[in-house]
Amino acid sequence: MDGQFNLGDRLPVLVDRIVASYNRDARTRHIDCTFLPSPPEVEELIRRSLELLFPGFFGRQDLSSFNVPFHVGELLPRIAQLTFRQVNKCLCYAQELEHRGVGPDGGCDKAARRITLAFVDHLVAVRDVLSSDVEAAYDGDPAAMNCDEIILAYPGLLAIAVHRLAHELYKQEVPMLPRMMSEWAHAHTGIDIHPGARIGDRFFIDHGSGVVIGETTEIGDNVKIYQGVTLGALSFPKDERGRIIRGAKRHPTVEDNVTIYANAIILGGDTVLRRGCTIGGSVFITSSVPEGAKVNISPPPLHVKESKRPAAAKSDGDFQI
Amino acid sequence: MDGQFNLGDRLPVLVDRIVASYNRDARTRHIDCTFLPSPPEVEELIRRSLELLFPGFFGRQDLSSFNVPFHVGELLPRIAQLTFRQVNKCLCYAQELEHRGVGPDGGCDKAARRITLAFVDHLVAVRDVLSSDVEAAYDGDPAAMNCDEIILAYPGLLAIAVHRLAHELYKQEVPMLPRMMSEWAHAHTGIDIHPGARIGDRFFIDHGSGVVIGETTEIGDNVKIYQGVTLGALSFPKDERGRIIRGAKRHPTVEDNVTIYANAIILGGDTVLRRGCTIGGSVFITSSVPEGAKVNISPPPLHVKESKRPAAAKSDGDFQI
Amino acid sequence: MDGQFNLGDRLPVLVDRIVASYNRDARTRHIDCTFLPSPPEVEELIRRSLELLFPGFFGRQDLSSFNVPFHVGELLPRIAQLTFRQVNKCLCYAQELEHRGVGPDGGCDKAARRITLAFVDHLVAVRDVLSSDVEAAYDGDPAAMNCDEIILAYPGLLAIAVHRLAHELYKQEVPMLPRMMSEWAHAHTGIDIHPGARIGDRFFIDHGSGVVIGETTEIGDNVKIYQGVTLGALSFPKDERGRIIRGAKRHPTVEDNVTIYANAIILGGDTVLRRGCTIGGSVFITSSVPEGAKVNISPPPLHVKESKRPAAAKSDGDFQI
Repeated sequence: MDGQFNLGDRLPVLVDRIVASYNRDARTRHIDCTFLPSPPEVEELIRRSLELLFPGFFGRQDLSSFNVPFHVGELLPRIAQLTFRQVNKCLCYAQELEHRGVGPDGGCDKAARRITLAFVDHLVAVRDVLSSDVEAAYDGDPAAMNCDEIILAYPGLLAIAVHRLAHELYKQEVPMLPRMMSEWAHAHTGIDIHPGARIGDRFFIDHGSGVVIGETTEIGDNVKIYQGVTLGALSFPKDERGRIIRGAKRHPTVEDNVTIYANAIILGGDTVLRRGCTIGGSVFITSSVPEGAKVNISPPPLHVKESKRPAAAKSDGDFQI
Repeated sequence: MDGQFNLGDRLPVLVDRIVASYNRDARTRHIDCTFLPSPPEVEELIRRSLELLFPGFFGRQDLSSFNVPFHVGELLPRIAQLTFRQVNKCLCYAQELEHRGVGPDGGCDKAARRITLAFVDHLVAVRDVLSSDVEAAYDGDPAAMNCDEIILAYPGLLAIAVHRLAHELYKQEVPMLPRMMSEWAHAHTGIDIHPGARIGDRFFIDHGSGVVIGETTEIGDNVKIYQGVTLGALSFPKDERGRIIRGAKRHPTVEDNVTIYANAIILGGDTVLRRGCTIGGSVFITSSVPEGAKVNISPPPLHVKESKRPAAAKSDGDFQI
Repeated sequence: MDGQFNLGDRLPVLVDRIVASYNRDARTRHIDCTFLPSPPEVEELIRRSLELLFPGFFGRQDLSSFNVPFHVGELLPRIAQLTFRQVNKCLCYAQELEHRGVGPDGGCDKAARRITLAFVDHLVAVRDVLSSDVEAAYDGDPAAMNCDEIILAYPGLLAIAVHRLAHELYKQEVPMLPRMMSEWAHAHTGIDIHPGARIGDRFFIDHGSGVVIGETTEIGDNVKIYQGVTLGALSFPKDERGRIIRGAKRHPTVEDNVTIYANAIILGGDTVLRRGCTIGGSVFITSSVPEGAKVNISPPPLHVKESKRPAAAKSDGDFQI
């Protein structure tokens, strides 16, 4: 199939129509603007940070007590530079948006430096919490053989690691970048944690596909969550003009020592799962749960149509998917 | 671990057995055939198209009113060539399959050209609809700060963008390629939209993991869908020999202004969600819903076993996952 | 944004703190250890194996009866070498862990060779079973046009292919590597099958996002599963000290000719879905199902609040997500 396809004289016409389309709509173009975070660089930032957080697992696997200080001494400035670039772009982006296309002359260096320094300062603290998350995964999963396996192969651990990094930047009110980091983790794990969510220590998501944790969720220590769980909003508070109020507490609070099993849906900014309660699979909750309670669905009565026929062929097509 | 592993005299025996396995089964080999779409080229086609649809976001981020016509003038022929190649391969593939291995002498150039021209012609229209999708996402998500964030970080937007491209090729009856594009989007977003699905303007999928939209689904304008929603088939109509009839309307119709919340399952070719209705979370529906209705599960009664014991330790392992 | 960011005199301090953090916690570092599987090499092993299992689809697409023996003769030793390296690393890793940091002098060559030879020996058998899986997908999905489409674009087929490879290594008791392979498939398909799961012929997962199949699951022949299905654990048996017992049968058994529809949750090591039964969507099951039975939820009663108002605007924000 080496046939060439040539648009010929249609090309100028098509170009004009496409450019006109760009001019028509500001929402889907980024032209004559200077600042925007770069998806490949955001991925680079995440990957280098993971190398630092979990030495010897990703990237170099030959670290020793002797070479590790040099390794860190080379890796950390790279992470700092990547962070500074993206943060600077995002801050300038926000200013440019606010000042109708006029970017700041001196960049946003001062704020970007402050934020970057705070970020790298916090890496040790993030690492310490992640150690507790690894331990929680090991304790919480009978299939886990050791901690190395958890770091190399557990999507829940990858998701919380990226979250804790993104959350640092969210707290510093960096626009765009935290959500891009969270979406990278979402694409790689199926786990969707908004960077605004506040999550305590020893946090474990097992399996994980389909987990959604909303922006204003608060989660305590020692919480375990299974696949398909939603910690979501019950309603969207609106202002007097009917516009959705951004920033209101819309998502639940989960206290310490709570376990939430697969496919449970917990909704509402006033909903609190109190200490030590257990939420069973497929539960649908829109009000608070008392301390230590075990909440279980009465499984909907099942229709069981039994059959005397031989079951040689698969009974198919008569049913829902 | 630089140890070499050598199969030695076992290699010829193993090769013979594997080749014999290839000869035994036509379903899992592509040998002595000429035409097959190439997954990496399909990805390239998607990525270049996304660059064109959302200028300045992916790839070059330094576009200006001055350079953008040249940028488009260089990008568009590349997209056209990629499309032509893959479409040509897919059409020839279908012919080769039909004529038992004899490929068409002149390729499928004529049809491939027609289809490719139609595809590039439609890119402006696709772009216009996607602008409405971006706006719908901004209006529909309190966590969205601006449209740029939606384009850079919302899996729902990525999925509908790829879908609208794949659907154009599906309508042209190109085999294979539309589904490969949809699966690329599925792998990157967790959202599974069959390229045959017909979807109106202002379509927004929030969160998205686990969404499944079947081939014969029809969706109107201004529809919002949350994670885990299935628009699926109730049964598979069969012909008189018991073979599943391909192409029959199996999936629901969703009219304008409908919202479907997380984990709802809507099934059946005759099922219609009429204008303005709202489908609550975890609802299971196999029959039509009237205009403007709000459908909600009576959440199954919950067993709540309360506890007087201190909730210091997590109550684990006594429950379902 | 070419501004340079320099940590200056903070760098040595930060490095010391990070290295101290590494020294503090053995669970999240891999330093002064020699052996660990390499994620990029595991991906390489998977991709080369897929090329061998499905000739002409991935990688080279120009295979002919004449060149295929040479192609296989070149590809197979590469697969063997990749497998040997990773298996060797994993076996040595386990020994190093057991002997407190002292790696085996002679590597684990002998066992790694035996395991690698068994793995390549089994590739033909894996390929034969995968042919049955492809056929099951074609028979089970009305949207499937042909087998090539299934191989190129069906995540369920990709997931079962990787599973069958990982399972071979799991049976050989190779640590780490099987789970890393399964997680690669999970990240690419949203399907989470523990490498310990035993799965018969003609296995088809349609759509697939959110499927979780636990370590001790047993599945017979001709089983079809839709998206969001969990085959999970009901409880975790504990020993007398309250520690979770690893390895106990915790997950269900699914006999031949069973179909499980979307979002069903089946839990428990004693739960058996007997031959030919059909499990409807959203069902929640913790006890066995008789042969040939059809199990369906009585869909929870729906609240339908009908509306006489025009449905022009979308009714939003008054509801759960």
